[in-house]
Amino acid sequence: MTVYLVGAGPGDPGLLTVRARDVLSVADVVLYDRLAAVDAILKLAPATATVIEVGKRAGGPSVDQGDINELLVSYGRSTPVVVRLKSGDPFVFGRGGEEAEVVAAAGIEVEVVPGITSAVAVPARAGIPVTMRGVATAVTVVTGQTAPWAVDTDWRAVASVGGTIVVLMGGAVLHEVASGLVAAGMAPETPAAVICNGTRPDELVIRTTLEHLPGVGPLPSSPTVVIGAVAALDVLRSEP
Amino acid sequence: MTVYLVGAGPGDPGLLTVRARDVLSVADVVLYDRLAAVDAILKLAPATATVIEVGKRAGGPSVDQGDINELLVSYGRSTPVVVRLKSGDPFVFGRGGEEAEVVAAAGIEVEVVPGITSAVAVPARAGIPVTMRGVATAVTVVTGQTAPWAVDTDWRAVASVGGTIVVLMGGAVLHEVASGLVAAGMAPETPAAVICNGTRPDELVIRTTLEHLPGVGPLPSSPTVVIGAVAALDVLRSEP
Repeated sequence: MTVYLVGAGPGDPGLLTVRARDVLSVADVVLYDRLAAVDAILKLAPATATVIEVGKRAGGPSVDQGDINELLVSYGRSTPVVVRLKSGDPFVFGRGGEEAEVVAAAGIEVEVVPGITSAVAVPARAGIPVTMRGVATAVTVVTGQTAPWAVDTDWRAVASVGGTIVVLMGGAVLHEVASGLVAAGMAPETPAAVICNGTRPDELVIRTTLEHLPGVGPLPSSPTVVIGAVAALDVLRSEP
Repeated sequence: MTVYLVGAGPGDPGLLTVRARDVLSVADVVLYDRLAAVDAILKLAPATATVIEVGKRAGGPSVDQGDINELLVSYGRSTPVVVRLKSGDPFVFGRGGEEAEVVAAAGIEVEVVPGITSAVAVPARAGIPVTMRGVATAVTVVTGQTAPWAVDTDWRAVASVGGTIVVLMGGAVLHEVASGLVAAGMAPETPAAVICNGTRPDELVIRTTLEHLPGVGPLPSSPTVVIGAVAALDVLRSEP
């Protein structure tokens, strides 16, 4: 009996790992969050697998974490291969750490299968390297989903690290991010990029600046936000 | 003609992405850095592919970056599928951003294939989630390879972000990291973990504290260093 905490990556099914694909192919049970490309990924599981959405959705309703933990333990006790499929990487703001702890504490074998995190891959596919020699030699990743976020985040500290700032699931906090960082001394004209549906065919990339970040308008999905000099780059396309 | 900048992940060949494997399987030329598990990964390329080590090694000799760029452009102009294989993720301290720029500026198609970054996956496999609700809600990733690093890094800022700190390729700067962070006000007893050969069968995990970090002794390979409360966790194993 093993519970596999599997990262599904940022959306492009090609960014699943070989290990994730192999584990899915022998799954008895799949407990999945609402993911980009979920249909293509679930097809990798046997047709006989029990597939259950425990669906966390940014800003929407979700199954209680306690109920997810209970499902993991009860299936983990009775079923050879349980796959807990999570967006991005399971240990980057995915509550995967808590889930692993609960499963391990119940005496059930647990394996983590890291996934490609949106924090790196979503900017990359938009031509933005989160580090770049001479431009950014540090990256700080925060989330917009930790309420009350504005209280938790020391903007002055984040700003003065001097590297790239990536905000995952930041759609609801664009104003707080921008005003917090400007108040901390960052230039209002600091480049910023807002990326929705990153790594997917319907990817939307908005290039802007810190001061205009709150005005980017309604977004089609929970964005990945990149702030810093790298956000003005597009290394995958030549300048005309 | 396309140059693929491909992340090979942290060492476990299972952590290669499906896209990376597919691109390698049709490669005409592979230009690779010295990687963990490089033999297993290069076997995925056709036997007829031209395979060239341009081998960056932490602390050791390396092919000049200008020479690598020239190789990428000259092969990129003449060869259908050129794979530039890099450790971890190509845009996380891999100089992949520069390489992409050079190739794109030469008018050659370039695609980035993100890889699993050691910054997340190496701690994960050692039972350390870089984020954990109530413990760490931010991650700052820096590198020990940017000289002169001590000057570049604002320790006070990094320390006051209050989240997890990950130092990649930090073997030569353990003393600077520890003294910098303690001088910035971090508690000397802050948990730290030093991980060599992460995600590999010969993985070595040393649990320590900030004050004892410089004394961990000679290391078998360039380590991933994790600093912060999460470094004391092992969520994959139950406490007896």
